[in-house]
Amino acid sequence: MKKNILIIGAGGVGHVVAHKLATAADSVGSLHIASRTIEKCNAIAESVAAKANVEARIVVQTHKLNAFDAAATIDLIRQTEASIVVNVGPSFINLAVLRACIETGAAYIDTAIHEDPQKVCEQPPWYANHEWPLRAECERRGITAILGAGFDPGVVNAYVALAAQDHLDALDSIDIIDVNAGSHGQYFATNFNAEINLREFTGDVWTWQEGRWVANAMFEISRIDDLPIVGRQKSYLTGHDEIHSLSAHFPHADIRFWMGFDEHYITVFEVLKNLGLLSEKPVVLADGTKVVPLQLVKHLLPDPASLAPMYQGKTFIGVLAKGTRDGKPHQVLLYNTCDHADCFTEISSQAIAYTAGVPAAAAALLVGHGDWDIGRMVNVEQLPPRPFLALTAQMGLPTSIVQAPLGNLFGRLHG
Amino acid sequence: MKKNILIIGAGGVGHVVAHKLATAADSVGSLHIASRTIEKCNAIAESVAAKANVEARIVVQTHKLNAFDAAATIDLIRQTEASIVVNVGPSFINLAVLRACIETGAAYIDTAIHEDPQKVCEQPPWYANHEWPLRAECERRGITAILGAGFDPGVVNAYVALAAQDHLDALDSIDIIDVNAGSHGQYFATNFNAEINLREFTGDVWTWQEGRWVANAMFEISRIDDLPIVGRQKSYLTGHDEIHSLSAHFPHADIRFWMGFDEHYITVFEVLKNLGLLSEKPVVLADGTKVVPLQLVKHLLPDPASLAPMYQGKTFIGVLAKGTRDGKPHQVLLYNTCDHADCFTEISSQAIAYTAGVPAAAAALLVGHGDWDIGRMVNVEQLPPRPFLALTAQMGLPTSIVQAPLGNLFGRLHG
Repeated sequence: MKKNILIIGAGGVGHVVAHKLATAADSVGSLHIASRTIEKCNAIAESVAAKANVEARIVVQTHKLNAFDAAATIDLIRQTEASIVVNVGPSFINLAVLRACIETGAAYIDTAIHEDPQKVCEQPPWYANHEWPLRAECERRGITAILGAGFDPGVVNAYVALAAQDHLDALDSIDIIDVNAGSHGQYFATNFNAEINLREFTGDVWTWQEGRWVANAMFEISRIDDLPIVGRQKSYLTGHDEIHSLSAHFPHADIRFWMGFDEHYITVFEVLKNLGLLSEKPVVLADGTKVVPLQLVKHLLPDPASLAPMYQGKTFIGVLAKGTRDGKPHQVLLYNTCDHADCFTEISSQAIAYTAGVPAAAAALLVGHGDWDIGRMVNVEQLPPRPFLALTAQMGLPTSIVQAPLGNLFGRLHG
Repeated sequence: MKKNILIIGAGGVGHVVAHKLATAADSVGSLHIASRTIEKCNAIAESVAAKANVEARIVVQTHKLNAFDAAATIDLIRQTEASIVVNVGPSFINLAVLRACIETGAAYIDTAIHEDPQKVCEQPPWYANHEWPLRAECERRGITAILGAGFDPGVVNAYVALAAQDHLDALDSIDIIDVNAGSHGQYFATNFNAEINLREFTGDVWTWQEGRWVANAMFEISRIDDLPIVGRQKSYLTGHDEIHSLSAHFPHADIRFWMGFDEHYITVFEVLKNLGLLSEKPVVLADGTKVVPLQLVKHLLPDPASLAPMYQGKTFIGVLAKGTRDGKPHQVLLYNTCDHADCFTEISSQAIAYTAGVPAAAAALLVGHGDWDIGRMVNVEQLPPRPFLALTAQMGLPTSIVQAPLGNLFGRLHG
């Protein structure tokens, strides 16, 4: 049984992971959180200590860390005797943290694909650009590395594994639908790190269809679904992490990701993009000032952590898997809905951070207990889905499953 | 007769002034243009030299000048023996240039009100904040200073003076309508210096109604007119320079300015404004970089000078003056329309710069010939309008006049 957990990253997701692991004192050992900004770690530790409705017997210990510095991370892992690292910092740090885990023997868990700050959109599959080349080394050294263990990627990968295992003999298509039907009441805000969030939509949209990578433009292709709980929602074909591992493990299925955006979001995004304000490339102003436009936009937008108190409404994240069963067409929809205000009541969070953080905390516990401590690098769809979905449900994110041989699983469906 | 003219500012308007004065060799003496960026001066001098259809016997002489430095401007005025300075640089430099003119005895002409870069919207009347306090000194020293001698302010002030002089016994309302019905084909661009242009719309909208200053929000109040030549156009109540002098000289009239904007312009503007990207106040980014958001936006937008070759369509600028004549209601519309592509054919310009630059050049010639060399500081409505309108028409901007006792001077009018 692996004990002592180090969380790296003190944003909204780190907040959720800390809260959730603090309620599992018997399984966790000591609990640590590290960030470049120690004040953010301290605020999380205080939030955990203050939540009277949480059985938090663990004091969260806080550490200042520049996680780009693998040597510093190695030192911190050794000093804290952490055997599990949950990396929920900006995805630019993934490789440095993973290398520190390989060096120290700690298990590694993250929730998003590695990104090179200099490149907006790399060639697919993205995992092959950074993480997968370290697979062999992880296997040789017996390192458990679980890639993409948030909700999407993460729980949705487990949904696909469960659909393939229990519901369908052959999987023809996987449509992942992620809709935030909530409202934060701000003019414009991103739900997590603006730099990472806005970069998701500035490059080509890569999906896996008919056995090959297909490129579309952002906001080029949309669908409207009448979804359970959140109702009629428009979503847009979007590139996303999980397509890049699911396509390797389910190469015969068409794999698409759809994200909901309202018209106002798209308007603001298009203005920023068209004017060059989302560029990660520095420009030099008339007075010689060198500035990265995206960094200024990030600075001007509300801090995602500040949104939680005002957030109302629910998120919907689900997988619609279609294929055949007993030789006949069959389809299954696996989904979760999560209420923003409930997340705030429970742990002063909102549903975007909550849905990403709870599964990561569950993954850490599964590694700790041994179920998922497999001594190699995997994506979530390569692991047994049932224990993950059961524990995630127990920790606050229940799964609903609807299936039917034919027809529309939603109220209306315009494909 | 005053000779030797120094143009300060080598943007689109400076280009037009240089071209137009170069065709009046006999009246001008030597012709000079100065700017912080000597390359822009040289490009204008080359453009003037290259226009075979222009009787340009004058070689435009170019000078590098930081016009914030009044001593440097004094030196340049003395060195060039300029007796007239046409200031068409950014309006931040007005006071420094005006002081240099007072010191050297040169006549001063500008086309826009002085602005303090630190303040977006000062209390009306704006002229009283900066220029008018120097009136007494100009009068004592016999300095001719003509404020706001472009089209608006400028020709429209002369329209008001002519309406009051020839058409109406009592002036009840003055509505200045400025619509650019042309298209530059770019996603978004400003027609002159983005910093000055966008600042026009970020503060309160000040108009003069019922004998007092009234504040509205930008895009709060609009009108739709079926205008001569350019047809049906929506315009918005906007603050503008000329209201601040006309209100002093016609205090019993309601004085409003209306500027045309299409929906796309407003969308982009609102996004930039709401996100704080039009702010002139520096912010400090995470990495310590200090940046003024508006400066970055300016940098990212197309150079206004680059728009001319693609520009199609026409501008409309006019004054609708209402009041009484012989005891009965009467109204008159004085207007000009100007074709972007014609401006490009003639002098490689577009109509926004052309309409601002031609009147400034005409004003310089009127000062040179003595008609307007009045030895004190005035706004254009205080001068005889006929010679100005006649010369401006002769130089490319003819005036049309429509009048009627009652009813709609346009096709349709929705007030």
